[in-house]
Amino acid sequence: MSMGVKERLSPSSFIGVQGDNIISFGSGQPDLPPPPEAFEVLPHYRDFRYGLIQGMLELRQALAGQYPHSTPESFVITNGASEALDLALRVIALGDGPGDRKVLMTRPYYYSYPETAHYAGLEPVFTDTLEGRIDLDDFRTKVQDCRAVIINSPSNPTGRVEAVDTLREIEKIASDLGIYVLSDEVYKDLIYVRENYLIKGPRVVTINSFSKTYAMCGSRVGYLWSLDSELIASVIAMKTHTSMNTNILGQQMALAATHTPITFIEDQLEVWRARRDLIYRGLLDLGLDTWRPEGAFYVMPRVDHPLDFVWDLFHDHRVITYLGEWFGSPGRIRLSYALDLEKIEEGLGRIGQYLEERGSGSSSSRL
Amino acid sequence: MSMGVKERLSPSSFIGVQGDNIISFGSGQPDLPPPPEAFEVLPHYRDFRYGLIQGMLELRQALAGQYPHSTPESFVITNGASEALDLALRVIALGDGPGDRKVLMTRPYYYSYPETAHYAGLEPVFTDTLEGRIDLDDFRTKVQDCRAVIINSPSNPTGRVEAVDTLREIEKIASDLGIYVLSDEVYKDLIYVRENYLIKGPRVVTINSFSKTYAMCGSRVGYLWSLDSELIASVIAMKTHTSMNTNILGQQMALAATHTPITFIEDQLEVWRARRDLIYRGLLDLGLDTWRPEGAFYVMPRVDHPLDFVWDLFHDHRVITYLGEWFGSPGRIRLSYALDLEKIEEGLGRIGQYLEERGSGSSSSRL
Repeated sequence: MSMGVKERLSPSSFIGVQGDNIISFGSGQPDLPPPPEAFEVLPHYRDFRYGLIQGMLELRQALAGQYPHSTPESFVITNGASEALDLALRVIALGDGPGDRKVLMTRPYYYSYPETAHYAGLEPVFTDTLEGRIDLDDFRTKVQDCRAVIINSPSNPTGRVEAVDTLREIEKIASDLGIYVLSDEVYKDLIYVRENYLIKGPRVVTINSFSKTYAMCGSRVGYLWSLDSELIASVIAMKTHTSMNTNILGQQMALAATHTPITFIEDQLEVWRARRDLIYRGLLDLGLDTWRPEGAFYVMPRVDHPLDFVWDLFHDHRVITYLGEWFGSPGRIRLSYALDLEKIEEGLGRIGQYLEERGSGSSSSRL
Repeated sequence: MSMGVKERLSPSSFIGVQGDNIISFGSGQPDLPPPPEAFEVLPHYRDFRYGLIQGMLELRQALAGQYPHSTPESFVITNGASEALDLALRVIALGDGPGDRKVLMTRPYYYSYPETAHYAGLEPVFTDTLEGRIDLDDFRTKVQDCRAVIINSPSNPTGRVEAVDTLREIEKIASDLGIYVLSDEVYKDLIYVRENYLIKGPRVVTINSFSKTYAMCGSRVGYLWSLDSELIASVIAMKTHTSMNTNILGQQMALAATHTPITFIEDQLEVWRARRDLIYRGLLDLGLDTWRPEGAFYVMPRVDHPLDFVWDLFHDHRVITYLGEWFGSPGRIRLSYALDLEKIEEGLGRIGQYLEERGSGSSSSRL
């Protein structure tokens, strides 16, 4: 197994790296299986003709029941949340909205955001978080000449959830400026501290997916929701020429998943909560400075010499972690806890052993 | 069924329009079923984790056997040919290739090309065909300040196939200028006049799909092939942030389709050839001026007053045809003959009846 050069370490360095003895806190992929209902359509499915660009009507009808004031016309089904964000940003970049061609995002950020913005023709602008949550003063200053903001609560990579008051204030700021809010809520069903708060407004675009809630990552079925019918029409027009319909069988599986009893989601949340408790407590016990994870399945401790940490931990202890630098946060590392309790425990043990060998715990300095 | 306003007629006007008595020469969708092999994986497939962004290795290995000097690294599996073209154009637009940010395309063109170019940040430049085929003199003039050209042989909408000498000359022109050739060969297995000629060169990007050959349109599995490893790397980098892996089950089905005996394709070609013969002869017998279809499943006759023709033919005779104007050719209409002989015969009969009522056949004037 070749990991390339230390200084060029990237998430793709770990692709295909596997083995019985490896503990991976790397990839953001649920390890739990999709709901059995999702598979029921597979054996006899035969219709592989083109589908509607906007997405299967029945699936959009099912989603309309989950969003207020919505009809099937308020949705576009996409190749995962990634394409939903890509299409929304491209449409916004080509349009004549207010502000410059800039999009504000919190830092640490999901590693794709700056790239997706750049590819769409928008300049990413960053607002650094306070303790992993939005700093409204800085947000208010930076947003003034932006055309859009990306909100990601619960957040990958921080695992933090924004206060409802913060989200309400952002609704107001965005509405006053007439700018777009792209709310990436792919972890909306994985919140440990409260119910999800759906950001609302005339120029809100909510981005979601079947990947995390239903563990269907490889199917690539996501969607965007908006009451801005002009934006919806522009997204459909663009998708007509850039990818056409989202794969038809994945949509059938997603439709089946919407019929899964709510207990499926509730039971999963309890599994995630136990993992969250274990890893958060474990990292604190190791003396690491970290934010309490409130949603999603990530935790982001501060460490000294993060590159050494990630490199040595893998090479000497077979534990995969990701550099915070990939998410705009150089002093930290990201751990995904999408693995069972036993493995989390084992991984924590190895991290402890490594820290002991290295003779250093967390940095005593704080950001 | 509402068709909207005559002057705003578009392909989407016909979406969802169906009925027992309608003959549709509209959509470019094969009516034949996918090979049975493609379905075999469905009943027991369970792995819906993220896949490689570049695409499943086994599928790329199977494709490498079909392209000269290729390895699995020469391919990226995409959400249909549409995404392959979109990614290639976006990467080319962002790169520092020669020429201006312009892409040359033949007219009549596949209706998405100008839009996809525009969305990617490239200006579409048109070279009008002679009798539906590339006019090399005009091509040579127009290509000089372009960064890329799109070649589509067999062509949707013309049904024409370029002479091998023309394609070789284009290879030379592109190579001399150092520009990209995007060769959309999604109809490569539907040629009535010769074997397919694969355009070659260091900056050639071949775009293909499982949609037409294997009738898997709704699955959205296509790919691009290139020996330009820098372009491949850039496409993978972009796809990482804009859509991630192509849906994993569609790729499994595509892999199964590559194992289909060659007789599947040969038998289908004979079905298409019989349809081609029937519709071409039928249109000539009706006095319409049309190019002989040499590949794909389209035919593009000249008609007087095309908007009346398409509108009245649908409203009075329940026959769907598409306006040539949507493909950059205002004096013509496009007919897709992806339907069985009996229906083609019935459709021709109705067109004949309409022409008789209208009291006019084809235009005597020529383009």
